[in-house]
Amino acid sequence: MEEIKVVTIGGGSSYTPELVEGFINRYEELPIKELWLVDIPAGKEKLESVGALAKRMVEKAEVPIEIHLSYNRKEALENADFVTTQIRVGLLEARALDERIPLKYNVIGQETNGPGGLFKGLRTIPVILDICREMERLCPDAWLINFSNPAGMVTEAVLRYSNLTKTVGLCNVPIGMKMGVAEMLGVDSERVYIEFAGLNHMVFGTDVYLDGERITDLVLDKLSNGTGLTMKNIVDLGWQPEFIQALGILPCPYHRYYYQTSEMLEAELQEMNETGTRAEVVKELEGELFELYKDPDLATKPPQLDERGGAYYSDAACRLISSIYNDKGDIQPVNTRNNGAIKSLPYDSAVEVNCVITRSGPKPISVCDLPVAVRGLVQQIKSFERVASEAAVTGNYNQALLAMTINPLVHSDSIAKQMLDEMLEAHQDYLPQFYSTELSLNKD
Amino acid sequence: MEEIKVVTIGGGSSYTPELVEGFINRYEELPIKELWLVDIPAGKEKLESVGALAKRMVEKAEVPIEIHLSYNRKEALENADFVTTQIRVGLLEARALDERIPLKYNVIGQETNGPGGLFKGLRTIPVILDICREMERLCPDAWLINFSNPAGMVTEAVLRYSNLTKTVGLCNVPIGMKMGVAEMLGVDSERVYIEFAGLNHMVFGTDVYLDGERITDLVLDKLSNGTGLTMKNIVDLGWQPEFIQALGILPCPYHRYYYQTSEMLEAELQEMNETGTRAEVVKELEGELFELYKDPDLATKPPQLDERGGAYYSDAACRLISSIYNDKGDIQPVNTRNNGAIKSLPYDSAVEVNCVITRSGPKPISVCDLPVAVRGLVQQIKSFERVASEAAVTGNYNQALLAMTINPLVHSDSIAKQMLDEMLEAHQDYLPQFYSTELSLNKD
Amino acid sequence: MEEIKVVTIGGGSSYTPELVEGFINRYEELPIKELWLVDIPAGKEKLESVGALAKRMVEKAEVPIEIHLSYNRKEALENADFVTTQIRVGLLEARALDERIPLKYNVIGQETNGPGGLFKGLRTIPVILDICREMERLCPDAWLINFSNPAGMVTEAVLRYSNLTKTVGLCNVPIGMKMGVAEMLGVDSERVYIEFAGLNHMVFGTDVYLDGERITDLVLDKLSNGTGLTMKNIVDLGWQPEFIQALGILPCPYHRYYYQTSEMLEAELQEMNETGTRAEVVKELEGELFELYKDPDLATKPPQLDERGGAYYSDAACRLISSIYNDKGDIQPVNTRNNGAIKSLPYDSAVEVNCVITRSGPKPISVCDLPVAVRGLVQQIKSFERVASEAAVTGNYNQALLAMTINPLVHSDSIAKQMLDEMLEAHQDYLPQFYSTELSLNKD
Amino acid sequence: MEEIKVVTIGGGSSYTPELVEGFINRYEELPIKELWLVDIPAGKEKLESVGALAKRMVEKAEVPIEIHLSYNRKEALENADFVTTQIRVGLLEARALDERIPLKYNVIGQETNGPGGLFKGLRTIPVILDICREMERLCPDAWLINFSNPAGMVTEAVLRYSNLTKTVGLCNVPIGMKMGVAEMLGVDSERVYIEFAGLNHMVFGTDVYLDGERITDLVLDKLSNGTGLTMKNIVDLGWQPEFIQALGILPCPYHRYYYQTSEMLEAELQEMNETGTRAEVVKELEGELFELYKDPDLATKPPQLDERGGAYYSDAACRLISSIYNDKGDIQPVNTRNNGAIKSLPYDSAVEVNCVITRSGPKPISVCDLPVAVRGLVQQIKSFERVASEAAVTGNYNQALLAMTINPLVHSDSIAKQMLDEMLEAHQDYLPQFYSTELSLNKD
Repeated sequence: MEEIKVVTIGGGSSYTPELVEGFINRYEELPIKELWLVDIPAGKEKLESVGALAKRMVEKAEVPIEIHLSYNRKEALENADFVTTQIRVGLLEARALDERIPLKYNVIGQETNGPGGLFKGLRTIPVILDICREMERLCPDAWLINFSNPAGMVTEAVLRYSNLTKTVGLCNVPIGMKMGVAEMLGVDSERVYIEFAGLNHMVFGTDVYLDGERITDLVLDKLSNGTGLTMKNIVDLGWQPEFIQALGILPCPYHRYYYQTSEMLEAELQEMNETGTRAEVVKELEGELFELYKDPDLATKPPQLDERGGAYYSDAACRLISSIYNDKGDIQPVNTRNNGAIKSLPYDSAVEVNCVITRSGPKPISVCDLPVAVRGLVQQIKSFERVASEAAVTGNYNQALLAMTINPLVHSDSIAKQMLDEMLEAHQDYLPQFYSTELSLNKD
Repeated sequence: MEEIKVVTIGGGSSYTPELVEGFINRYEELPIKELWLVDIPAGKEKLESVGALAKRMVEKAEVPIEIHLSYNRKEALENADFVTTQIRVGLLEARALDERIPLKYNVIGQETNGPGGLFKGLRTIPVILDICREMERLCPDAWLINFSNPAGMVTEAVLRYSNLTKTVGLCNVPIGMKMGVAEMLGVDSERVYIEFAGLNHMVFGTDVYLDGERITDLVLDKLSNGTGLTMKNIVDLGWQPEFIQALGILPCPYHRYYYQTSEMLEAELQEMNETGTRAEVVKELEGELFELYKDPDLATKPPQLDERGGAYYSDAACRLISSIYNDKGDIQPVNTRNNGAIKSLPYDSAVEVNCVITRSGPKPISVCDLPVAVRGLVQQIKSFERVASEAAVTGNYNQALLAMTINPLVHSDSIAKQMLDEMLEAHQDYLPQFYSTELSLNKD
Repeated sequence: MEEIKVVTIGGGSSYTPELVEGFINRYEELPIKELWLVDIPAGKEKLESVGALAKRMVEKAEVPIEIHLSYNRKEALENADFVTTQIRVGLLEARALDERIPLKYNVIGQETNGPGGLFKGLRTIPVILDICREMERLCPDAWLINFSNPAGMVTEAVLRYSNLTKTVGLCNVPIGMKMGVAEMLGVDSERVYIEFAGLNHMVFGTDVYLDGERITDLVLDKLSNGTGLTMKNIVDLGWQPEFIQALGILPCPYHRYYYQTSEMLEAELQEMNETGTRAEVVKELEGELFELYKDPDLATKPPQLDERGGAYYSDAACRLISSIYNDKGDIQPVNTRNNGAIKSLPYDSAVEVNCVITRSGPKPISVCDLPVAVRGLVQQIKSFERVASEAAVTGNYNQALLAMTINPLVHSDSIAKQMLDEMLEAHQDYLPQFYSTELSLNKD
Repeated sequence: MEEIKVVTIGGGSSYTPELVEGFINRYEELPIKELWLVDIPAGKEKLESVGALAKRMVEKAEVPIEIHLSYNRKEALENADFVTTQIRVGLLEARALDERIPLKYNVIGQETNGPGGLFKGLRTIPVILDICREMERLCPDAWLINFSNPAGMVTEAVLRYSNLTKTVGLCNVPIGMKMGVAEMLGVDSERVYIEFAGLNHMVFGTDVYLDGERITDLVLDKLSNGTGLTMKNIVDLGWQPEFIQALGILPCPYHRYYYQTSEMLEAELQEMNETGTRAEVVKELEGELFELYKDPDLATKPPQLDERGGAYYSDAACRLISSIYNDKGDIQPVNTRNNGAIKSLPYDSAVEVNCVITRSGPKPISVCDLPVAVRGLVQQIKSFERVASEAAVTGNYNQALLAMTINPLVHSDSIAKQMLDEMLEAHQDYLPQFYSTELSLNKD
C-alpha cells in the first residue's frame, strides 16, 4: 500500500467536502495519492460541482491528492485500497416516500430501523452487494467502509451474503453521543470515553468515563434531569427520569422512536404538516449547499454543512481509514461481526461496538452483555435486519411482509401489508428483484 | 410416596371441579389419599361450596380420596407430595382494573404479558415465593405445580429467587392449540403431535405431526386461509396469509396481541363498552358456576365449566402429576428451565417447551432454535418477565417503570409512568413491597 | 412406508444373525418385507454362509421376511427405508495392524478413539460418505443407522461432510452399562434408567435411576468398592475409589484407556505376547462362529455369538428402527447432533446422548452439562474426531499427523509421526485419498 | 490516586530489583510515592538485602520513591493503590519436591500445569485469597497484580472464590514469545505484534504481525525448520515440522510438556541426575544473586538477574500498572475473565488473552476461537485448574485426587493416588486445609 487509492461511491453527495477536508487534515499520516469520486450519470451535475470544489480544496491546502471524477465504477475500483460508499438509491425523493407512506397509516417511517429503513435496505443492499462482487475481482485487498444507511442492515447483509471479509460499517451516532456528553459536562470531548454496544441506530453507552474515571451515574443523572443528547434530525422530548435511572445505560437519540413511539409519531405528523418530512427539509438544505459549492471562490468546507445532520460521518471515515492504514490500535465504535463481544447476540451477526482498529481490521472489545431490559428490543431490531436482508437478496414478497410486520414500530399485520404494497409500488423502479416483469410482483 | 397427598392452594377456585374430576379419572394410576383444598378466610363461602361438591364427586365416583378444606396453609403443606397453585390475588376485581386502567390510555391490559400481567405478577409473585419458602421447610420433596398466571413470569421468579428446584409451570394454551389443530383437520387429538417452543403465552408450534408425519405446511396453509386456532378469551381476527407463510411456524392465540395490536385494541375497547372487560364477563360466568355448585344433587363437573376459558388447565395438571408420580417418560409442554433447548434464550431462563416427564421432573427436548424472525419478540417478553420479577421481589419503583416501558404493548415512557402510578395506587392493598408506610411509595 | 425394506451393508458380518433375530422378534410391530444383506465380492463366502443361516432363521420363525443377498450396493439401496452399516474396511487384519503398530511404540492402539481408531476412521469414512451420496440419490427418505466403528467419528463426518440429514450412530456401550448396573444391583435391566452424555466410547452415566428413584450415589459406591462394569473386550483393573467418588458420574469401560493408560498399556503388551491382540482373538472367535453358521440344522442365533463382544449392538439397531418406524417417542442413547443438550460441546457436533426417538428421528434431551472435571478429556476426543474426519476427507498428511499428535493416548509428536508413517504404509491399499500415485504420499 | 502506593507481597524475592528498575524507569509517567516490600519473618535476611539494594537504586536514580520494608501485611496494605504478589509458599525447597516426587513415578512435575503445579496451587491459593480478603477491607479500590505461579489457577481461584474484582494475572511467557519472534526475524521487538489466546502457560500466538502485516505463515515456517522459541527453563527439542504446519498457530514453550511428553520426561530425568531439578539449579542461581545484592556498591539491577528465567516478569508488571494508572488503552496479554473473547471456553473463566488496558482494568479483545485441534488440551488444563482451585479452597482429598488424575501429564489413577499421598505428606506444613489435626488427612 505504497500509494493510497481511495474510491468514494456516491461521490456527488453533499457530504463529500467533509470527507475531503478529513483527508487533507490527515495528509501527513495518510498520504492519499488518488481520490476517486464515483457517481451515476444521473448525478453528473452534483458530482461535477462537488468535484470542482474538492479540487479547489486540495489545491488551496497544497496537498498532492489527485481528485478523479468517474461514472465508471469498475474503472475506479481497479487496485483501490479503500472504498467508501455513501449512496442513496432513489435520492431524497425515495426517502420522502419512505416517510410519507407510513405516516398515512399512523406509523413512523424511520429511515433506518423502521418501515422506511426496510425499503431503504431493499433498494440499497443489492447495489452494495454488486460493489462487493466487483471489489472481490478488481481490488481484493481493499477495505469497504460503508456509511450508506441503513448501515447496520447493510453490514449484516455484507457479512451474510458476500465473500468480502474486509468490511466495516460506520455511523455518526456514537461520535455524536460523545460530543453531546462532552457538551453536557462542559469538557473537551477528547477527555470522554464511552463504551458503546448494540446495533446501528440502536446503540447504548454502557459506561461513560471522564479522564478514565467512571462517571456513568453522573451522566444518567444529568440525562434524567435535563434534555439529554440531541441530534439535528431527532426531536428531543426528554426522558422519564426514573426510566433512565432504571435503564442504567445511556440510550442513543434513535431510542426515542421505540420508547416514545406515541409522542414521536405525533411530532412527525405535525412536522410533516408544517415543514414537510425530514427528507423534504434535507432536500432544501442540500439545494442551498450545492448553491454554495458552485462558488468558484469557495475552497474549504463551508460551515453550513455542519448543519446538515450527518456531521462527523465523513470525519469518522477518515479517522477509521487512517487507523487501518497506520495500524494504530486505537479504539473506535464501528459496525462489525460480533465475535462474542455482546453475549446475547449471535456470534456471527453485525453489531456496533468499540473495536481496536488495526491493519487487519476492527477487533471487538468484549462488553459482556447489555442489561437484560434492553436485550429484547435489540434482538427485535436484529431479527428485523436479518429478515429484511434476506428479503433484499431474494426479492421474496412474504419475507418482506415478515420484516415489515416484526418491526417494532408496526403494530398490525394488515397495516403492514397495506404499507408494503403501497411502498413496493412506489419504489418499483429501484426494486427489480421483486418484479419478474415490469408489472407483476414475485409472490410465492 | 406411598400415600399421595396433594395440596391445592386457591382451592376455592371455580376450576377445582375439573381438577377433582381429573384425579377421579386417574385414580387407578394415581391413588391420591388426601386432597387438601386451601384458601384464605375471605374465600370461605366459595371454598365450602366447591369443597362440598368435591366431596359429592369422590363419593359418587366411589374413590377413596379424602377431601380436606383448610384456611391454614402451613398445616396443609406438611408432608405434601404435590402442591398446585391456582391463586388470584385481588380476585377478578383486580383483574378488571388491570384491564380497564390501561384501556384508558389506549393500551391493551393483557393480563399475562401486558401491563395487566405486570401487576398480576407484582401481586402474585411474593405470595408464590412465600409458598416456596414454606415448602422448603414443610415438604421439601414435594413438587410445586403452578398454574397461577402469569405462569411464565412466576416460573422465572421461582427459578431465580427461590431455592425450590422441584417446580413446573403449567398452561392450557399448548393443549388448546393441539385440540384446535385436531379440530381443523377433523382428526382425533391423540394423533396430533406439536413441537412447542417459546415462552408462556408466547409459545409457537415449530412443527406439527399427524401420526408421526410432518404436516406443518398443511396446517400453516389452513391457518392462512381460514380463521385459525381460537380460544374462548381471545378475539380471532384472522391472519395475513403471506405473513403466516413467511413465519413458517404456528403462532399461539396470544400472538394476536403483538402482531395485531391495533385491531385487538379496538376490539377490546368495543368489548369494554358493550359487555365489560373479560374480567367482568368471567365474573358473571363464575357467579353462575357457583350457583350451580350449590346444588346438592350435583356430583359431577358441570358441562358449563368448559365454557369458562381455562379448559384443560386442571386436566393438564393431573396428567403432569401422574407422569411424575409414575415416572412415565411421556412428552408434555411445560414451563421449566431452558437448559439449552432453545439456543437463543438464556440457559437458565424459564421457557415453555416439550419435555420428557420423569419422576425427577421435566427434561427439555432440544428444539435448536426459534426462527430468527420471532426471536426479538420472544426475547422482549423474556426481558419483560425478568425485569418484572425483579420489581416484584424488590418493590423497586424504577424497576417497575422499566418493566412497564419495555413491554411491547406500551409505546411511551410517559404513558407507562401514568399507568404505573394509577395502577400502583389502585392495587395498593396487594403490593406491600412497594409501600414503606401505608401511603408513601418506595421511590429511590 | 407400507412395505419396509432394510439394507444391511456389510451383511456378511458375524453379527448379522443377532440382527435377523431382532427383526424376527419384532415382526409384529416392524413388518419388514425385504432384508438385503450386501457385501463386497471378496466377502462372498461369509455372506453366503450368513445369508443361508438368515433364511433358515426366518423360515423357522415363520415370518415372511424376504432375505436378499447382493454384491451390488446401488441395486440394494434403491427405495430402501432403513440402511444399516456394519462394515470393517480391511477386515480384522487391518485392525490387528491398528493394534500392533502402536504397541511397538509403547502406545495403546485403541481401535476407536486411539491411533488405531484414527486409521479405522481414515479407511471407513470415505466409504460411508460414498454410501451417503448414493442414498441421497437412490433412497432419499431412508434412515442411515451406522454401527460401523469409530461410530462417533463417523457420525461427526456424516454430519459435517454429507447432505444426509436422516442419520443416527449407534453403539452398544450404553446398553452394556445399563445391563452391568442391573447385574450389579441384582435387578431386571428394565427397571434401570441411566442418563447418558458424552461421546461415543467416551460416554458417562450422569445419573442412574431405579424405578424412577435416583440411585447414582449407590451405584458409585458399588463401583468404587467392587470391580465395576465390564465389557468382553476391555480389561477391568478396578478404579481408585476416591477418584470415582470425586468424579460423581459413571465412567464407561473405555474410560480406562485414558484414566489408567499406564496399566492398560502393560496389560495390552502382555496380552499381545500371550494370546495376540484383541483383533487376533476376535478373528479366532469369528472363525468358530462361521463354522457354526455352516451347520444346515442351525436356524437360530447360536449362543456363542453373545461371547463375541459386540453383544446388544444389533438388537439396539432393531429397537431404534422400530421406534422410528412406529414413532414411539421412547428414550434411547444414540449418536446425533448435540443441539445444546451438552452445553460445553459445540452445538453442531455429534454427541452420544439420550434422545426421544420419533418418526422424524432422535431429539436430544438436555443434560445441561458434564461435570467440569471431564470436559477437557471429552473435548479432546471431540477435537481428535474432528481433525481425523477432516484428514479422512481431504487425505491431507499434516492433518493426519495433527490428529495423531493430539490424541490423548499419544505423548510425543515424533512418535506420532513414526506411527503415522508406518501405519499409512501398512494400510496403503485402503487409503487412496492419501496417495496421488500408488507410491507417493500427498504431502503439502 | 494522587500519591501512588504500591505494595509488593513477597518483596524479598530475587526478582525485586527488576521491579524497582521498572518503576524507576517509568517514574515520569508513574510517580510512585511509596513502595512497600512485604515478606514473612522467615524471609528477613533476603528482604533486608533486597530492600537495601532497592534503596540504593532509587537513591542513585534520584527518584523520590520511598522504600518501606515490612513484615506486617495488613499495615502495608492500608490504602494501597496497587498490590503485586510474587510469593513462593515453601520456597524453592517445596518446588524441588514438586519436581522430584513425580519424577520418581516417571511423571513430569511441571511446576504450573502439572502435578507440581497442583501442589503449588494448593499451597498458594489460600494465601492469595487471604490477601484478597484483607484488600477488600484495607484498600478496596486497589488493583491486585498477581504474578505468583500457577498464575492461571490463581486467577481462576480469585475470580471464583473472592469478591475482589480488580484483579489481573500476569505472566512473562507472552512477552518472551514476542522477544523470541523478534530475534528469529532479526527485527526490533516493538515492530512485532502477536495475538495471544489460551490459558496461562498454555497460550498460543494465533496470529503474528510485523509492522501490521500478517506474517503468521512465515513464523510457522521458521518454527518448523529451526529450533523455535526458547525459554531459559525449558529444553528445546524442536517440533515436527508437519505438526506445526497443521497446527497453524504458534505454540508456547510450555506446550512441549504436552506434545512431547515422552522426550521431556527423559530430559528431566537426565537433568535431575546430572545437575538436579530446575528448582535446585535456580536455588544455586539465587544464592549467587543474593551474594551480589549484598555488595554495598551495587545500585542497579545486576545483569545476572536476566539469566534467572523469569525475565520480563517484573517489567510486565510495571508496564501494566502504568497503563492502568494512566488509562492508556494499549494492548497487553494478561490473565483475566474470558467474557466471550475465546468462544469455546466458559464465559466466566480466567484466560490469557490480549486486552485493552484502561483505568477500569483489562477488556479482552475477541479472538473468536482457538483452532479445533487445540481446544481439547486447553479445556483439559482449564478443567484441571478449576478442580484444583476447588481442592485448594475446600481441602477435599477426593477433589485433589480428581485434579491429579485428570492432569494431562498423569496417565494412571493409581499412580495419581500414590503421588498425591506422598506429596500431601511432604508438603503437610503448608496445607493446613487438608489436615483436621496435625496427623490426619481430611478424607470424606
